[in-house]
Amino acid sequence: MKITASKQELMKSLGIVMRAVPSRTTMNILYCILVDATVDTIHFTANDMELGIETAVNGSIQERGSICLDAKIFSEIIRKMPDDDVTIETGNDFQTMISCEKSVFRIVGKDTTEFSPLPSIDRKEPVILTQFQLREMIRQTIFSISPNDANKILTGEYMQIRDNEIRLVGLDGHRIAIRRVLMDKAYENREVIIPGKTMNEIGKILTGEMDDEVKLFFTKNHMLFEMEQTTVVSRLIDGVYFRVDQMLSNDFETKISVRKNAISSAVDRALLFTSEADKRPLVLTIEKDSMNLRIASPVGSMSDDVDIDMEGKELKIGFNPKFILDALRVIDDEDILIYFLNSKAPCFIRDEEQSYIYMVLPVNFV
Amino acid sequence: MKITASKQELMKSLGIVMRAVPSRTTMNILYCILVDATVDTIHFTANDMELGIETAVNGSIQERGSICLDAKIFSEIIRKMPDDDVTIETGNDFQTMISCEKSVFRIVGKDTTEFSPLPSIDRKEPVILTQFQLREMIRQTIFSISPNDANKILTGEYMQIRDNEIRLVGLDGHRIAIRRVLMDKAYENREVIIPGKTMNEIGKILTGEMDDEVKLFFTKNHMLFEMEQTTVVSRLIDGVYFRVDQMLSNDFETKISVRKNAISSAVDRALLFTSEADKRPLVLTIEKDSMNLRIASPVGSMSDDVDIDMEGKELKIGFNPKFILDALRVIDDEDILIYFLNSKAPCFIRDEEQSYIYMVLPVNFV
Repeated sequence: MKITASKQELMKSLGIVMRAVPSRTTMNILYCILVDATVDTIHFTANDMELGIETAVNGSIQERGSICLDAKIFSEIIRKMPDDDVTIETGNDFQTMISCEKSVFRIVGKDTTEFSPLPSIDRKEPVILTQFQLREMIRQTIFSISPNDANKILTGEYMQIRDNEIRLVGLDGHRIAIRRVLMDKAYENREVIIPGKTMNEIGKILTGEMDDEVKLFFTKNHMLFEMEQTTVVSRLIDGVYFRVDQMLSNDFETKISVRKNAISSAVDRALLFTSEADKRPLVLTIEKDSMNLRIASPVGSMSDDVDIDMEGKELKIGFNPKFILDALRVIDDEDILIYFLNSKAPCFIRDEEQSYIYMVLPVNFV
Repeated sequence: MKITASKQELMKSLGIVMRAVPSRTTMNILYCILVDATVDTIHFTANDMELGIETAVNGSIQERGSICLDAKIFSEIIRKMPDDDVTIETGNDFQTMISCEKSVFRIVGKDTTEFSPLPSIDRKEPVILTQFQLREMIRQTIFSISPNDANKILTGEYMQIRDNEIRLVGLDGHRIAIRRVLMDKAYENREVIIPGKTMNEIGKILTGEMDDEVKLFFTKNHMLFEMEQTTVVSRLIDGVYFRVDQMLSNDFETKISVRKNAISSAVDRALLFTSEADKRPLVLTIEKDSMNLRIASPVGSMSDDVDIDMEGKELKIGFNPKFILDALRVIDDEDILIYFLNSKAPCFIRDEEQSYIYMVLPVNFV
């Protein structure tokens, strides 16, 4: 094999496929990137057996072939090369020469027959979103999952398609985050649980452009995300998700409207007196025109007041301030609405159209 | 005590004195910042007993007094405040209220009598440098010290004043870094060993402006750096420094001139095949117009060629690439000169005026 591509193009492609290279594994081949120039296009592929990424590399093929290269060393070599065209050439016994201007690196690759190819997935009837939509949906929900939970279902995100509506849901037992997007047309109803790691990595690969599309394909055990040059295949999490709709409610006794930045800053201040070890509640005291936020710990106390518009009853309720702040941080609206029933019931932060819903359970306070 | 200052001014002052707050200590009072408004100016002071920093804070004093506040909590509170005037007010039992707009924090301070004041130092006959000069001298030598060495002398920097010449030296047994600056006038001859930590922190406090001065004062055991609003006092390291001049030599058999960026990039590439555990030598093969750089390890090998102008003999010599790169990184010249005697003798990277000298010992190669 002998191929040439610009350093910049190689860096871009490596940045994408490196997301599927595990940091720890017992299978050495998984640390490798497959460099494939057996057909007309150069492709890089990495596959940790749960998540696989393949991307097309703009470059020229002087001699067809393929090789597996250690991802870390390969990417470090490319990163340190001059900003010029880089040639990758294989010889006997997987000897690989990577050269650019006067710099020549020699490393030993691995047999490509050891490499597990991506599962082949039938690409029929895609669900189509813009890359902007999917990236935003992930960003606005992923923080609510429980990545290290023993219950696998909590480590993933729930994707539900009903007619022309797609919903992404993350929950961890204390809170729920839901983002809903209306698509251009109706699709077959589906529901899948996608690993959190997949969603995190996809979120970083998506361009975030309104003009770029991403096509979603589903099989029983896998899901495929197709972008212009890049394809991501992920295993799905087996199981039945929680009945999310039963956890939601539109009843309320207290509704407030508040400037997002004002409440965010105040809740952020409260985080000073809370920690993993010592989860002090943030107590909200909601009155006609003003909401007081108060937290006290052995270290000290904080009190802050935020202007609000309130409908309904006055209320005093406690929360883990981190859960409230996590939701506030991903909302783009300047003014937000929060709905409360009573001091024992969850609060809902949501817009009128319910394009986003954040539910947070309250905590006891004295 | 009751004082008011802008959030921005408080942040700036905290950023300076926090550098003398230890991350670990058995004396709780050392975690504190002394807020002193007993005289006409507000001062913040922190002192870890080796390094002490005092800075003047622009603000107003409504009621004189002083308090010690936990540095971490105090600075976090200020950081989270709105961008407005902040009032700090003490009450009974060291109760302290920190408020800004509607945000009110309450913490408990400590008795200021527990706080160790900075050692008082007679400010006579200062040695005067620009802040730019001292900052550059530190940046260009500090990397050569051995911060965790059992031999205390190696953990510090050697400052030597002879007439109108000031030299700063760092060495670790494998290399020496020397920066020399000529001052406007001659001063009394002096030599001191300053702790590396002091130099690191001073380097970050100095503005780096040519127009700002820093005055140096010396006592037997301490040194004081006086800037416009800030004073830094440091203990000195006891002992006699190495005879640096005896380690230097102007003899050479091979002299090369090379573009700094070209050699830096090539040496940086070589770092890929060297690690703390496996210190492979970088072998330089110096010929008439070209220098080859080569390194080989079990992982792979690299070879690079750099254009040079050579005077004298051809030479093959090995180095730890990190030591060469550390020196190259702090040199601002576009073209540099390197002097070699033979493959067993150190090389010297230095300019014609010897305003900087970097000596690196060679290593064996096969």
